[in-house]
Amino acid sequence: MCPVVRNQLVCCEKEADMPKAAEELVTMCAQYCISFADVEKAHMNIRDSVHLTPVLTSSILNQIAGRSLFFKCELFQKTGSFKIRGALNAIKGLIPDPLEGKPKAVVTHSSGNHGQALTYAAKLEGIPAYIVVPQTAPNCKKLAIQAYGASIVYSEQSDESREKVTQRIMQETEGILVHPNQEPAVIAGQGTIALEVLNQVPLVDALVVPVGGGGMVAGIAITIKALKPNVKVYAAEPLNADDCYQSKLKGELTPNLHPPETIADGVKSSIGLNTWPIIRDLVDDVFTVTEDEIKHATQLVWERMKLLIEPTAGVGLAAVLSQHFQTVSPEVKNICIVLSGGNVDLTSLNWVKQAESPYQTISV
Amino acid sequence: MCPVVRNQLVCCEKEADMPKAAEELVTMCAQYCISFADVEKAHMNIRDSVHLTPVLTSSILNQIAGRSLFFKCELFQKTGSFKIRGALNAIKGLIPDPLEGKPKAVVTHSSGNHGQALTYAAKLEGIPAYIVVPQTAPNCKKLAIQAYGASIVYSEQSDESREKVTQRIMQETEGILVHPNQEPAVIAGQGTIALEVLNQVPLVDALVVPVGGGGMVAGIAITIKALKPNVKVYAAEPLNADDCYQSKLKGELTPNLHPPETIADGVKSSIGLNTWPIIRDLVDDVFTVTEDEIKHATQLVWERMKLLIEPTAGVGLAAVLSQHFQTVSPEVKNICIVLSGGNVDLTSLNWVKQAESPYQTISV
Repeated sequence: MCPVVRNQLVCCEKEADMPKAAEELVTMCAQYCISFADVEKAHMNIRDSVHLTPVLTSSILNQIAGRSLFFKCELFQKTGSFKIRGALNAIKGLIPDPLEGKPKAVVTHSSGNHGQALTYAAKLEGIPAYIVVPQTAPNCKKLAIQAYGASIVYSEQSDESREKVTQRIMQETEGILVHPNQEPAVIAGQGTIALEVLNQVPLVDALVVPVGGGGMVAGIAITIKALKPNVKVYAAEPLNADDCYQSKLKGELTPNLHPPETIADGVKSSIGLNTWPIIRDLVDDVFTVTEDEIKHATQLVWERMKLLIEPTAGVGLAAVLSQHFQTVSPEVKNICIVLSGGNVDLTSLNWVKQAESPYQTISV
Repeated sequence: MCPVVRNQLVCCEKEADMPKAAEELVTMCAQYCISFADVEKAHMNIRDSVHLTPVLTSSILNQIAGRSLFFKCELFQKTGSFKIRGALNAIKGLIPDPLEGKPKAVVTHSSGNHGQALTYAAKLEGIPAYIVVPQTAPNCKKLAIQAYGASIVYSEQSDESREKVTQRIMQETEGILVHPNQEPAVIAGQGTIALEVLNQVPLVDALVVPVGGGGMVAGIAITIKALKPNVKVYAAEPLNADDCYQSKLKGELTPNLHPPETIADGVKSSIGLNTWPIIRDLVDDVFTVTEDEIKHATQLVWERMKLLIEPTAGVGLAAVLSQHFQTVSPEVKNICIVLSGGNVDLTSLNWVKQAESPYQTISV
């Protein structure tokens, strides 16, 4: 594994501020920050500790989409999202030799699924976890992190404060930062999803993957293009956070200019220095979807499949049901959509619509 | 199959009004309205048309319950609940000989899961379905029934009006009534759940089954006691609709005195003349649960398992987590809970509580 941008803060909104050393490391790296061998190694590292999540289908959703859909149920994964794969692989990578001793702590600044996953993974290995959280974060997230056993450290809401506090905690605890999506071991861990999908859906023609920082889609793309290069890898993202789409369009890393507003809160991050080259070269297309499309797709999965996904996990189906996706060749028939997680705040569902005709499209 | 109380209105709230003929038929029947052979036949009838639903587990819920729980996911069943099993078996039973011709129509007065299932099953066989619904029923239910392709016939809200309208429609259409839970073919159809569970969870010690009219628990009890008599069959019901508990306590059929108020709207019916003898003899115990216990269990399944069950399906877990269940021997370790359905109105979740500490009990 190429040691790119490990243990450094990578803030995609501020590419210009990236430490020079990181940029040089990226250039040094043969091609990408991970290779398929890293995904294979990740699979060995984590397979006994994570679930082989099932792939489910729905004849009604097949009818609606006009293709055969296969839903990879990472909402059933430990900690409720795929993030445990990357977090656990990163932690395992930190203790390659028991004689060297464990790191004294791990640190991150995600109060969402990665924060929970990292805390869980650290607990498995007996390492303290510190999560930097803005004081304004919702109480339920703080409680969830504490319940998993992490120490919460508060910052102000600004990126600057968050980074400063994170650096301070890393120094004070001699802790190691595990970045949610640019850490190579995290990207390799997420790639194990694709290994499973190729076994579970041998005739798959395409995978559709929600993209935020791009760790999952990059890991999956590395794996798919190594094993079955003809299988398409599509990224799906909110129109309100379309840095991946813009980057592909312009041919250069183009982070979101402002913190995006989207119900898909798991994909608000921009892609970064480590995931961009992989996405640039190996992701076949990017589909953007509106907030209404995300809500509609999420509610479809709830009502038709009875799966309690979080809205972020609805982004993939929204993409497949979008107008733009009609341009994809009908030969791309068997489509695997990654349902990335199920950590939804049930008290915030005020946007759910009364079904006007919930079974309108049912046919026998 | 013993032709008990088929094609007649059985209204458990009004046992005294039961037609004499039906009572005599019950007495005439060797022992119960169905035998295990009927369940085996039902399995042959329906197995190509229904899902073999998965059994899922949750280590967190095992920790909370202190036993090994196996969740039979009938929420993933066609039409979103187990009801399709019984409805389809009944329809198949109505056309045993193609030369005799199909019945001209099927009729029922359930606007819930049975109504949808019967309509779907009738459509499969090309038979028109008529569903008698009170004019005051929620619009979403009416729309769902229409979308499945049934004709809605309105009645007043009273039981008398419902029965009168149902009788009229049966005469006008020359239709056959398929009772939601006292029709023997329906009971046999629901029993196929147990056949699957015995294969999927070979070491099962007990099944926990929500009880309303008792069709499911009766079919399951017939099957379990025929094949593995040492396996326990427990009924679970809302305290607010505890006719099954009261009947077992008094040793005689004791229907709910008033239409019960419970969030578990799928089990508001009372057990009836056909299900009572089976429940009396073959169901090992009945556990009642409060509304708060049902809500808590339902929310646990949503948050921990990411399964969008309807509150009726939460009654089984609520029973297993209840104080009373602590009296069950620790040797009854492997417990299969039937998650009966997932047709929940997402706009009515105003009772959902903000998780105070959602991952309180997590241990690695």
